Amino acid sequence: MNCHQIIFIDLNDALIPFCSTRIYLLMNTTINLNEMGLCQMLRAIDAGDCTTEAIIHACFDRIDAREPNVGAWQVKRSREAYLTYYQANKATLDASLLKGLPLGVKDIIDTVEMPTEMGSPIHQGRQPIEDASCVAQLRAAGAIVLGKTVTTEFAYFKPGKTKNPADLQRTPGGSSSGSAAAIADNMVPMALGSQTAASVIRPAAYCGAIGYVGSRGEFSLRGGQPLAQSLDSLGLFARQVEDIQLLRSILLRQPASIDPTNAQLPTCVLVCHGESVGDLSSAMQTATVKAISLLQAKGIKVIELEAGDRIREMVNHHINIMAWEVCRNLVIESFHADQLSAPLAALIEQGLSMDRASYVASLDAADACRDWLWSYSDEAEVILTPASPGIAPLGHDATGAPHMSRPWQAMGLPVINVPGMTDENAVPLGLQLVGKQRQDDDLLHYARGIMTLFAQE
Amino acid sequence: MNCHQIIFIDLNDALIPFCSTRIYLLMNTTINLNEMGLCQMLRAIDAGDCTTEAIIHACFDRIDAREPNVGAWQVKRSREAYLTYYQANKATLDASLLKGLPLGVKDIIDTVEMPTEMGSPIHQGRQPIEDASCVAQLRAAGAIVLGKTVTTEFAYFKPGKTKNPADLQRTPGGSSSGSAAAIADNMVPMALGSQTAASVIRPAAYCGAIGYVGSRGEFSLRGGQPLAQSLDSLGLFARQVEDIQLLRSILLRQPASIDPTNAQLPTCVLVCHGESVGDLSSAMQTATVKAISLLQAKGIKVIELEAGDRIREMVNHHINIMAWEVCRNLVIESFHADQLSAPLAALIEQGLSMDRASYVASLDAADACRDWLWSYSDEAEVILTPASPGIAPLGHDATGAPHMSRPWQAMGLPVINVPGMTDENAVPLGLQLVGKQRQDDDLLHYARGIMTLFAQE
Repeated sequence: MNCHQIIFIDLNDALIPFCSTRIYLLMNTTINLNEMGLCQMLRAIDAGDCTTEAIIHACFDRIDAREPNVGAWQVKRSREAYLTYYQANKATLDASLLKGLPLGVKDIIDTVEMPTEMGSPIHQGRQPIEDASCVAQLRAAGAIVLGKTVTTEFAYFKPGKTKNPADLQRTPGGSSSGSAAAIADNMVPMALGSQTAASVIRPAAYCGAIGYVGSRGEFSLRGGQPLAQSLDSLGLFARQVEDIQLLRSILLRQPASIDPTNAQLPTCVLVCHGESVGDLSSAMQTATVKAISLLQAKGIKVIELEAGDRIREMVNHHINIMAWEVCRNLVIESFHADQLSAPLAALIEQGLSMDRASYVASLDAADACRDWLWSYSDEAEVILTPASPGIAPLGHDATGAPHMSRPWQAMGLPVINVPGMTDENAVPLGLQLVGKQRQDDDLLHYARGIMTLFAQE
Repeated sequence: MNCHQIIFIDLNDALIPFCSTRIYLLMNTTINLNEMGLCQMLRAIDAGDCTTEAIIHACFDRIDAREPNVGAWQVKRSREAYLTYYQANKATLDASLLKGLPLGVKDIIDTVEMPTEMGSPIHQGRQPIEDASCVAQLRAAGAIVLGKTVTTEFAYFKPGKTKNPADLQRTPGGSSSGSAAAIADNMVPMALGSQTAASVIRPAAYCGAIGYVGSRGEFSLRGGQPLAQSLDSLGLFARQVEDIQLLRSILLRQPASIDPTNAQLPTCVLVCHGESVGDLSSAMQTATVKAISLLQAKGIKVIELEAGDRIREMVNHHINIMAWEVCRNLVIESFHADQLSAPLAALIEQGLSMDRASYVASLDAADACRDWLWSYSDEAEVILTPASPGIAPLGHDATGAPHMSRPWQAMGLPVINVPGMTDENAVPLGLQLVGKQRQDDDLLHYARGIMTLFAQE
């Protein structure tokens, strides 16, 4: 225990000073200040139980200790630069909602203070002239951009330097590799990402973070580099669902609260696994069965989705849509083919050679599948489905399989990875919850309840 | 007649040199080189009937003569700078599809060679670091950006300096005011615009240009400043439908042809006017009735859409969607409220104060209306409906009524303004054709046929 630790005393996060070194109790466990969720941090500051500076130091201590191994950051402020900025704006920040706490921003999202290089040599040193609207909104709410987090090349397959903080021998997943790792490794309490295929859910699942993908069209993507306009979604990473709710409220310019709300359980869950989604590791099968048991033990009705080929077929439709649109968004880059990775060059080539009718058929198929899916059960409020086939694969040359995310992304549905499950070696296994189109708030309410269920195990 | 004139000799645009001053015959009428459509220009160059330089000079002659009155350009290259650029890249440009012909780009779309100020003092001198993908693609195909065309403030209501070239006392419409005027006034053969409410169709209708709005999601919007992600569409302006088809093919990186194709007439048209859309001027009523007669005279079945309130109700749904999304895209700008026009500030205020449930209900209503609309008739291939309540209003303090476009834009449908009709004083009246979702190619085929019908009158 040191001066950057807190011990919570109860489940409602009512923080009570324990000694002058700012130590608190929670079920007799201790956590460092940097390990708190965003809202927990803000409540602790509000209550006078710790200072913003202490949290900032705790985050930088963690980064100093871990970044050489984890490699979550493409570029970042130094501790000194961060504190200088904080002190210079202290009055404003102290009065703000987010108090000057640190934010990680995926390096595909424009920032006016730091380069945005998109994981590509084509854009080395590229300095945007404006913040993306999501960054501008969070900065206006009092966040400070600590740095840009590692992305794969143009948010596609070619990995950056990041390693999985839960097991450094494994991929963190991609493309929002750095944001997921920075959250899971307690370096910052909030981070921005983006998902076109599996770029939020997969790294969140592999690293053990909460990753939320908004419904298609939910957030302004201004200043986030477009990859595929029918698929791109903003992603939010945090360690508590309430933090996602807070960040979402800020981004939507809605009333935002740091007060804890009650968790809400759904009454009926549609489960999509096994044949419907494809091969799963035995660990993931076990985790899914365990999740079903936990739901049923709470009296929640569980319906198994019998999808036949429908969900799996969405994988190829997703790839079709992505190939067509990527090659029409990455125009500048496709003129520098020698500086593209082989997988991205192949995707662009696929997009160039395909027929538009095939693209349109895939868009139509995704719309039809979404309509079918939510007419399957009148009762189901949310879908539970594995976020990946299993734990993060060993090695750093690839970012794992994206096909468990592609169907939901093609349908434009809101999704959240709920951590909590692990394999027998404590490597994270992610289950994702899929919500109804544009019903993101309901999804997050249910995610809060279900995450509490998983956490109690 | 001067050396920049051409007279066509037949309807198939087979250009035959008439004298050394490059004059051609078409039905015994003469037109200047700058008045040709883009494909006509390209065919004339290919045939050796005129040079690219001669067309460039003709365009600059027209701009020199008219720009002081019309005011289509926010910023532009000088004739000397244009020709210097052309000569420096002559070999590449002569071998290219678009041969170095001039392009106008709405000043809401990023260009690396010129500032992009979005019609707002907030962004005075703003210099993007990259071309928008649409600009990059057209430049790669051999277009030269002649300049940035005037936009209203952030593509919303506050007018720029542009006047209607058909009647300088009248508004050109907005927000793509400069692009529509530059095309209608024969300053350039191609121009880019954008539409969130009525920003392509309205100025095209008022000025007498062809303006095409792609289906939602049809084109990459990278580098076009987002206003409302569920509504924004790229727009293309030209003087012939075949030119729109060519530009569309280039932007979609599809095989592109400058050869004329046969016009195609639909077999059944759904007409939406009268009560279904709201008050129309008597001139517009007359034009609509005349259009119906022309269709019927060709044996085309015309079905009158009896929409009750459904289409008109889409107007408020569109406003709802736009208000919600604009205030979440114009984040940076909303922090400079003193530099926003009153209408834009009011729109942002509306977006901030409204309930998200109302926004979602409007999105859902638009989806439902689109489904209803295209289930109305199994036969109808395209919808014909007035593009505006009447001719362009007198004065320059406002840009006219957008409500004839809002419903189709809310539904995300492809639309094209077909010029040809006028009132008794030869002021343009626009009729728009609305296509099925993602069936843009069919829409353009029908537009080609229908425009030929209107032109023969």
